Amino acid sequence: MSPAPTPSTSQLPMAKDFSSFLSLEGAARKKSPLKSLLPLMHGDMISLGGGLPHPSTFPFHSLSAQITGMRPQDAQQQQKAKEPHTKASDLVTVPLAPQPDKVESLTASLQYGVGTGIKSLRDFCREHVRSMHRPQYQDWDIILSAGNTDAFSKTVGLLCNRGDKVFVEEWTYPTALETLDPLGVGHIPIEMDGEGMTATGLRRVLDNWGSTPEQANEPKPRVVYLIPTGQNPTGATMSIQRRMDILSVAQDHDLILIEDDPYYYLQFQASDANSYVPSLLSMDTDGRVIRLDTFSKTLAPGCRVGYMSMNARFCDIMQYHNEVTIQQPSGFSQAILAEMLVSHWGQEGYRRYLTENVRTEYLKRSQFLQTQLKTRINPKFASFIEPSAGMFIWIKIHLDQHPRYGTAKDSVLMLDLFRKCVENNVLMVPGWQFSCKPKPTDLDPADVLNCWFDEDATYLRATFAYASFEQMEEASIRFGHALDQIFAA
Amino acid sequence: MSPAPTPSTSQLPMAKDFSSFLSLEGAARKKSPLKSLLPLMHGDMISLGGGLPHPSTFPFHSLSAQITGMRPQDAQQQQKAKEPHTKASDLVTVPLAPQPDKVESLTASLQYGVGTGIKSLRDFCREHVRSMHRPQYQDWDIILSAGNTDAFSKTVGLLCNRGDKVFVEEWTYPTALETLDPLGVGHIPIEMDGEGMTATGLRRVLDNWGSTPEQANEPKPRVVYLIPTGQNPTGATMSIQRRMDILSVAQDHDLILIEDDPYYYLQFQASDANSYVPSLLSMDTDGRVIRLDTFSKTLAPGCRVGYMSMNARFCDIMQYHNEVTIQQPSGFSQAILAEMLVSHWGQEGYRRYLTENVRTEYLKRSQFLQTQLKTRINPKFASFIEPSAGMFIWIKIHLDQHPRYGTAKDSVLMLDLFRKCVENNVLMVPGWQFSCKPKPTDLDPADVLNCWFDEDATYLRATFAYASFEQMEEASIRFGHALDQIFAA
Repeated sequence: MSPAPTPSTSQLPMAKDFSSFLSLEGAARKKSPLKSLLPLMHGDMISLGGGLPHPSTFPFHSLSAQITGMRPQDAQQQQKAKEPHTKASDLVTVPLAPQPDKVESLTASLQYGVGTGIKSLRDFCREHVRSMHRPQYQDWDIILSAGNTDAFSKTVGLLCNRGDKVFVEEWTYPTALETLDPLGVGHIPIEMDGEGMTATGLRRVLDNWGSTPEQANEPKPRVVYLIPTGQNPTGATMSIQRRMDILSVAQDHDLILIEDDPYYYLQFQASDANSYVPSLLSMDTDGRVIRLDTFSKTLAPGCRVGYMSMNARFCDIMQYHNEVTIQQPSGFSQAILAEMLVSHWGQEGYRRYLTENVRTEYLKRSQFLQTQLKTRINPKFASFIEPSAGMFIWIKIHLDQHPRYGTAKDSVLMLDLFRKCVENNVLMVPGWQFSCKPKPTDLDPADVLNCWFDEDATYLRATFAYASFEQMEEASIRFGHALDQIFAA
Repeated sequence: MSPAPTPSTSQLPMAKDFSSFLSLEGAARKKSPLKSLLPLMHGDMISLGGGLPHPSTFPFHSLSAQITGMRPQDAQQQQKAKEPHTKASDLVTVPLAPQPDKVESLTASLQYGVGTGIKSLRDFCREHVRSMHRPQYQDWDIILSAGNTDAFSKTVGLLCNRGDKVFVEEWTYPTALETLDPLGVGHIPIEMDGEGMTATGLRRVLDNWGSTPEQANEPKPRVVYLIPTGQNPTGATMSIQRRMDILSVAQDHDLILIEDDPYYYLQFQASDANSYVPSLLSMDTDGRVIRLDTFSKTLAPGCRVGYMSMNARFCDIMQYHNEVTIQQPSGFSQAILAEMLVSHWGQEGYRRYLTENVRTEYLKRSQFLQTQLKTRINPKFASFIEPSAGMFIWIKIHLDQHPRYGTAKDSVLMLDLFRKCVENNVLMVPGWQFSCKPKPTDLDPADVLNCWFDEDATYLRATFAYASFEQMEEASIRFGHALDQIFAA
């Protein structure tokens, strides 16, 4: 969808006041007095204040990376050269001292900074969000994170007290639950369909809140955690209508939406910057969406750099939280990303990298594994909804075709199948690992060959992201055999 | 002090069981089931499991840094060349794919990993801790962090519940208090002398715990936060005896000690690896010390890499915490540090860098500023204890020499002095910023020219770490003038 023309910023509304949504922790985060000396640093002032290490003690004199070129002429070269190793390559260099033609220097990017991330990279990310998502209120901002797991953990700190609960998709990213659990924050699963969390499911739970004995004394939860695009594990992507419906429930019931969107740029149909499905952030006129973006899936997980978009009030608190934890992402990561994105690629080059390189690679891989699975497995025994984004295929096992269906528990049959897969030397992730149901306390999570809980977890998660094409073909054949063996039992 | 000869590891005791010290959060952290598939990956197994991005989508083909050489022949060169820019320089390179002569590759270090940090760098840090600190129990381990603020924040999560309190030095690092406050964890200041926190002060508070009405229903705190070397802000360094005494109180009252030691390698007398004052970790036979180390002051803050040493049980939980937050430090940082430290410098090169480069630079700077201050200020008006480590000089203002002493409040006189310093274009950090007393709720921390709370905060913190030598001289002259003007008032 081509986004609506942006009204000039001054015509947009200001964010609503969501202060009452802050947790005890979030509300108590304050600007550090240590930063109070900075405004005095002008003119002839000499500071013996801030405890910055002397750059002469840094053993790093310059930093360089050979990167994929994304200048217009490189695009043609790229198409000729199919092998990744023969890609047009550029050298980006970060010098020790500031230079007029360089956006960053090591003396600056390897020094302490503020909790927002370095200016050049933050500005780039803000401009990218502005052009891709066009937030519909004035006072939004972004701040860098160490990736979406770090960002989600801080978002929970911002909004949730021990004893609170968060709405989640009924199958969800296990790390999200592992973030909530130790903090004493509960989760309430909402039913999903092929487009992810259903708005009707969410509305029903909220409309009826308080009607069950357990809910009688429990305040209505106010936070929803969502992976709207290429959802992990189901691969589901919300349609525009679904997104509008979810946002409408959020407005009616005054909810904050955490839009965890690492797979946004892995939308297979998105052949240019205008063909992405719009984000929840792009539809939010209130400032109730906290959007989490990361370079982990678009550049490399090892960058440990992401960025969060949200209303400015929340953004300030996130900065204070950064300042007492990671401070900011690694200066090596930030300097290389800034030099590559700001000086070499530019906004247009990055957008092209997303569609021409990242998307194309995963599109090819997704189609290949889907074709292999369709060819190599008996459709009576298993099926999946074709993912339109992300890295995952969520394979439903048709246990009702199993000769022991109804006499053996579903979990027993699933464990049988998982073991048979391992016997056939093919590995997928057991569906129960994405379950929202409380795990049995006697469960040893390492003992994956002897444990299958949740009778509804009749799924396996496969990914096309990493294995070679040959491996994907062979894995599909082996999985087909495992199914045949199990269903013939 | 030369450390005692190390008994062979098998003769050392095992750590005591400190499980009962875990917070609700710490006790609830568990190994992620997602890692349970890894042990199955052997032989002919093909995995469509873990959602790792494909390295062909990484736009980084190689990474290099020009670094200070630390080979034996470089040492001589170094001594000839006084200018940092003419230092002997080595090129470290991290290739895309693994190579036999390289410890790291970008395909590995820019991929997702486990929450411990990459093996080569973790092994290097563990060996460094073993050789420098020789922990006196068997089952200790280390894990990488994103620096000591990140590590401290996770340590608080490991040990403290909302409502708990932690013992701290009466003047302490403001970020530590800003970490505790929003989590609802209180702090109890312990008196200090020229060697930092006093063991007698700590013991007195613990021996008499429960004797005041506020303490009557409060459990005895069990965690002490300490900066034992070159303390921030006082510059104090604990003697061996003081360390032994503190540890003895910790054993008698069963406490966990958090040893935050970023300035350990900035001990001015430490001309070789055997002349450092021993760490608390090195004396701990129980596993009750959690030691936080960082590369921020020894290599560069922008690395955002540190390492924590502690008993193996705690270390596992820290790993689970890393896995739901930062995952691990930046792959760029880790790859460069691994290549530099493991392949180029080695343990011996790093130890030499610490003593020959880092220590020497701060020794020179410390001596210069001390001399300047002694020359340029009237000793009747201000004095300081000579720091033997770190970055800071804690300047005591002799308000009793002030003509308005006793008629005006101390805080009024201190604010006058601070303003006079700013008027003279010299900046130091107001002592109140390191105070443990509750800050007035009407305080605007940015309004540093109009606020001075805590009548005991009759100090200014100066650092010799960053300003040029010319600036330090000029700043001392200006500070001398400001004092003269204020005390003549």
